[in-house]
Amino acid sequence: MINWTNFDELKSYSELQNVKKVELKEVMAGENGAERVKKYSVPMAAGFSFNYAAKAVDDDVLAALKNLAEEAQLAEKYAALYNGEVINTGEKRLVLHQLTRGQLGDTVTADGVDKRKFYVGEQNKIAAFANDVHAGKIVNEAGEKFTTVCQIGIGGSDLGPRAMYLALENWAKANDTFFMDAHFISNVDPDDATSVLNSIDVAHTIFILVSKSGTTLETLTNEAFVKDALTKAGLDASKHMIAVTSETSPLASSSDYLAAFFMDDYIGGRFSSTSTCGGAVLSLAFGPKVFADFLDGAAAEDVLAKNADPLQNPDMLDALIGVYERNFLGYGATAVLPYSQALNRFPAHLQQLDMESNGKSVNRFGEPINYVTGPVIFGEPGTNGQHSFYQLLHQGTDILPLQFVGFKKNQIGNDVVIQGSTSQSKLKANVAAQIVAFALGKDDADANKSFKGNRPSSIIIGDQVTPAALGALLAHFENKIMFQGFVWNVNSFDQEGVQLGKTLAKKVLAKDTDGALTEYAKLLEI
Amino acid sequence: MINWTNFDELKSYSELQNVKKVELKEVMAGENGAERVKKYSVPMAAGFSFNYAAKAVDDDVLAALKNLAEEAQLAEKYAALYNGEVINTGEKRLVLHQLTRGQLGDTVTADGVDKRKFYVGEQNKIAAFANDVHAGKIVNEAGEKFTTVCQIGIGGSDLGPRAMYLALENWAKANDTFFMDAHFISNVDPDDATSVLNSIDVAHTIFILVSKSGTTLETLTNEAFVKDALTKAGLDASKHMIAVTSETSPLASSSDYLAAFFMDDYIGGRFSSTSTCGGAVLSLAFGPKVFADFLDGAAAEDVLAKNADPLQNPDMLDALIGVYERNFLGYGATAVLPYSQALNRFPAHLQQLDMESNGKSVNRFGEPINYVTGPVIFGEPGTNGQHSFYQLLHQGTDILPLQFVGFKKNQIGNDVVIQGSTSQSKLKANVAAQIVAFALGKDDADANKSFKGNRPSSIIIGDQVTPAALGALLAHFENKIMFQGFVWNVNSFDQEGVQLGKTLAKKVLAKDTDGALTEYAKLLEI
Repeated sequence: MINWTNFDELKSYSELQNVKKVELKEVMAGENGAERVKKYSVPMAAGFSFNYAAKAVDDDVLAALKNLAEEAQLAEKYAALYNGEVINTGEKRLVLHQLTRGQLGDTVTADGVDKRKFYVGEQNKIAAFANDVHAGKIVNEAGEKFTTVCQIGIGGSDLGPRAMYLALENWAKANDTFFMDAHFISNVDPDDATSVLNSIDVAHTIFILVSKSGTTLETLTNEAFVKDALTKAGLDASKHMIAVTSETSPLASSSDYLAAFFMDDYIGGRFSSTSTCGGAVLSLAFGPKVFADFLDGAAAEDVLAKNADPLQNPDMLDALIGVYERNFLGYGATAVLPYSQALNRFPAHLQQLDMESNGKSVNRFGEPINYVTGPVIFGEPGTNGQHSFYQLLHQGTDILPLQFVGFKKNQIGNDVVIQGSTSQSKLKANVAAQIVAFALGKDDADANKSFKGNRPSSIIIGDQVTPAALGALLAHFENKIMFQGFVWNVNSFDQEGVQLGKTLAKKVLAKDTDGALTEYAKLLEI
Repeated sequence: MINWTNFDELKSYSELQNVKKVELKEVMAGENGAERVKKYSVPMAAGFSFNYAAKAVDDDVLAALKNLAEEAQLAEKYAALYNGEVINTGEKRLVLHQLTRGQLGDTVTADGVDKRKFYVGEQNKIAAFANDVHAGKIVNEAGEKFTTVCQIGIGGSDLGPRAMYLALENWAKANDTFFMDAHFISNVDPDDATSVLNSIDVAHTIFILVSKSGTTLETLTNEAFVKDALTKAGLDASKHMIAVTSETSPLASSSDYLAAFFMDDYIGGRFSSTSTCGGAVLSLAFGPKVFADFLDGAAAEDVLAKNADPLQNPDMLDALIGVYERNFLGYGATAVLPYSQALNRFPAHLQQLDMESNGKSVNRFGEPINYVTGPVIFGEPGTNGQHSFYQLLHQGTDILPLQFVGFKKNQIGNDVVIQGSTSQSKLKANVAAQIVAFALGKDDADANKSFKGNRPSSIIIGDQVTPAALGALLAHFENKIMFQGFVWNVNSFDQEGVQLGKTLAKKVLAKDTDGALTEYAKLLEI
C-alpha cells in the first residue's frame, strides 16, 4: 500500500530538521577528509561512481535520509511507476520512459498493447530505416544518398536529443563508427530556421519533424520554413521528411512524410531522449548500434535505481542529498558542472529536466504545499565556468550546491604536454582542486583573498563519454529528479505552468487583448 | 567628496526596508496596468527602451531608489571611474573599459599616455590590419587569402567576443557586409581544440591568441594544439597567428606572431568585448565598420548612464530595481531571456559579467559585509526557454525576477505566415504574453492550473539586433552591474575567488597534495 503523503507530514521531516548539521570544512580536512573520499562513494552503471564525500552529510544525516527513503516509500513508488500505475495524476497517464530501455518489472499493457514491445518495435523500425538510409536504399528525390540529418522540435524534442548528439559527435568521429552531421531547428524566431537551412545542403538532408501532439506551434511553423526551402530547391518535401509523433496525431498517417515513428503519451517530452524522439536523430547520425548502447547504459542505471537502500542506490542518494540541501540547508540553486566539452549542452537539458519536472507548488492531488520544491539549475562545462561564474560560487554571499562530472579519458585522444602535463590531466586536476577549494576554503589575513569553504559538491566520475556512459548519466539524473518528486509529493510529469503564456500569446495574435497586454503589443509593434 | 559607505549604513537602506511593498498583480491589472506600461519606460541608446512596468515598484519605491542613487553617489562614482580614479581597489587599477568606446570626461593619463588615444590607436591598428587581410595584402604562407578566423581565449577572452560574434553573424550575412567565418577555442579539455581544428581549413585560418598576461594556462595549452596543427600541415605557425595581449606580456614582442594588438590592466577580461579582445575577431569577421558601429552604440549608452536621475538613466534604474529585488524582496536568482536566437549566448556572457563582478562577500576595503550581493544569473533565448525551465518560473515555490529583451524585427527578414501570423509576430506575441502571465497570473478552481502571478519582469525593447544595438545592450548591462557594485560597496573589478582553485590544481599536477585532494586525484587517475 503506497501512501502519497506531503513531505512535511513525514516523521523523517522533523528528524531531518533536528539532525546535527555537518561542518563540511571540518570533516573534509586532513586524514578524515581522505577517509570520506574513500568511503562516501557508490557505484553507478557504465563504470561511473557517485562520490558525495564533499556533501554536508555524515553517518547521522545519511541514516535520517535512509529513514526518509523508507518512510516516503521511494523504491515502492518507483516500482509502481515502472509497473504501470497512473503516476502522472494531473494528466491521468502512466510514466513509462524507463520502459523505452528495459523491462524493469511487470508487463505493462496500455491501449491494448504491451508497451515494452511497442517501444522496442519502434526502435527496430528506426534501426531498419536508418540502416536503409546509410546503405543508400532510402535516398533523396534525385536518388542520391542523404548526408545530413536535421531535427525540427522544441523543448524536450530539442534539448535532450541535441545535448546527446553533441556529447557523442566527437566520440563517433574518433571511433570510426558511422557518422552523419546533425542539425537542429527549434526557436519560433524565424532567423533560427533560416540560418540553419542556409548552412546545410538541403537536397541531401533528411528532416525529422518531432511533435507528440502534431500541434506544437513552433514546430509546425519551422516545418513550413523547411518545406519552403525544399520547394524552392525544386524538391518534393514529402521525400525528405519523416515524422516522430503519436499514433493519434495528424502527422501519423500523413502522406507528407517518408515515414512516421511513434511515441505515446506515457513519455514526457523532457524524458523522451531514449524514445523515438532521440532515437531517430541519434540512429541516423551515429547508426543504430550507438543508440542501442546508449539505451543499454540507461537501462543498467535504471536497474541500480531499484535498490531500496539509498546507500547502494546512487540516483536515490543524490536525490535525497539534494532534498536535504534544498529544504533543510536552504540552498536555492544548483550548478551542474561537467568537466568535458562534449557535455557542453548537457546542463541546458538538465535545466529543463529538473526545473520543468519539480518546479511545482501543489502536490500530486493539486493541493498547496508548505515547503520549497525544485531548485534553479544552471551550468557550463569546466574549465570554462571557472573563468566565468565560479567567483560567485567561491566568494558570493549565497551558498550553491554543486554537481561535478569528470572523466578519466577524453574522447578524441589527441593531446599535448605543456609544463609537464597533458591537457586532460590539467582538466582533471582542476575538477579535483575545485571540490577541495569549495569544501575547505582558505584563510587569509586579507579578507578579499579568504575563502570561507563549506560549499558542498558531489562528483560523478567516469571513464569516458561513450554511448553507454551517456545513457547511464542521463538515466541517473532522470531518476534523481523522479525520486525528488516522490519526496516532495509533486507530480513531476506534467507542466501546467506553460499553458497560460500560450493562451495569452494566442490572444495577442488574435488582437483579443486589453490593459497592459495591449500596450506591450503596441510597443513591440505586433 | 565621495563616500564609499556600506549599503546597510545608508539612510536609504532603512527607507527601502520600510517602503510599502507593491502587489504587482493588483497594480498591473486593467487600465492601471496599461497606464504603467506607458509611464514606466525610459529611453536607451540605439532606439531601445527599458520598460519596468511589470516590476514590483511604484512612485514611492522609485522615490526611495532615487534617494539611494543620490546618497550612494552613483553618478559621482561613475564619473570618478571614467575620469581615471583607482576604482579597482584590490588590484590598485583604474577601470577604463568605457574609454575604449568614448571619452566621457577628463583626459585620463596613465603609464605616461592618454589612455583614450591608446585605445583608439589600437583600434585603428586592428582596422588597418583587418582591411589588409580582407584585401589580400596580408595573406597566409602560401600567399592565399585567409577565409576564417579563430580566437583562442577563455573567460572574458571567449564569452563576450563569442556572444557578440554569434549575435551579428546572421545580420552580417543578411546585409552583404564583409563576412568571414569565426571559431573559438576555449576549454582546456583537449577535445575542444582538436574538434575545432578538425572542422576548419587550418591553412586559410588566421588565429588570434588572446591573453592579457600572456600566461593563462588554458590559452597557452590551446596555442600548442594550434601550432601542432599548423606544423603538421607543413605551415609556419608564426605566419598564421596574431596576439592580443598587454604591452608587458611575453607575447607582445614575440616573433611567433604576425602582429600584436594591445589591451592593458585597466580593462577587466569580462569588460573587454569593446577592447582589442573583441575588436580583433569582430573586425576580422565583419570588417572594421561593424566594430566601429558596435562601439558607437556602447558609447551612446555610456553617455545616458551619466544622468544622476535614475528615472532618466536606464542603466542606473535597472541596477537599483535589481538591488531592491535582491536585498528587500529576497530574490536569489535572475533569468535573462532574450527573444532572439541571435542572442543565444548573450546570457552566458552576462552570467560571467554579473556573477564574477558582484559575487563578493567583502566591501571594497576588504571588510566583511552583512547583506547579500550579486544574484545567480542564467538564461536561454525565448521561445526555447518557454518549453524548458519556465514551468518553475511560473509555478515554482521561489520567485525569480526576469529580464526580457525583445525586438520588433528579426535579422534575416525571411518569414512565413502560419495560422494568420508570421513567426516574428508569434515570437513577439509570446514575450508580451509572458510578461503579463508572470505579473497577473490566473486563478483556477484547479490549483494545479492556477498561477499566483506577482512574478516581476522588465523588458528591453529594440528595433533589431544591429551592431549599434548590440553595443548599447552590452553597455547597458556593464553599467547596470557597475552601479550595483557601487550600491553594494564592493569592488566589481577583481576576481580573487578564482585563485584558490588554480593554486590547488597546480599542486595536484605537481603531486604535492594530501588528504582528500590526494584521494580525488587517485579516483580521477591523474
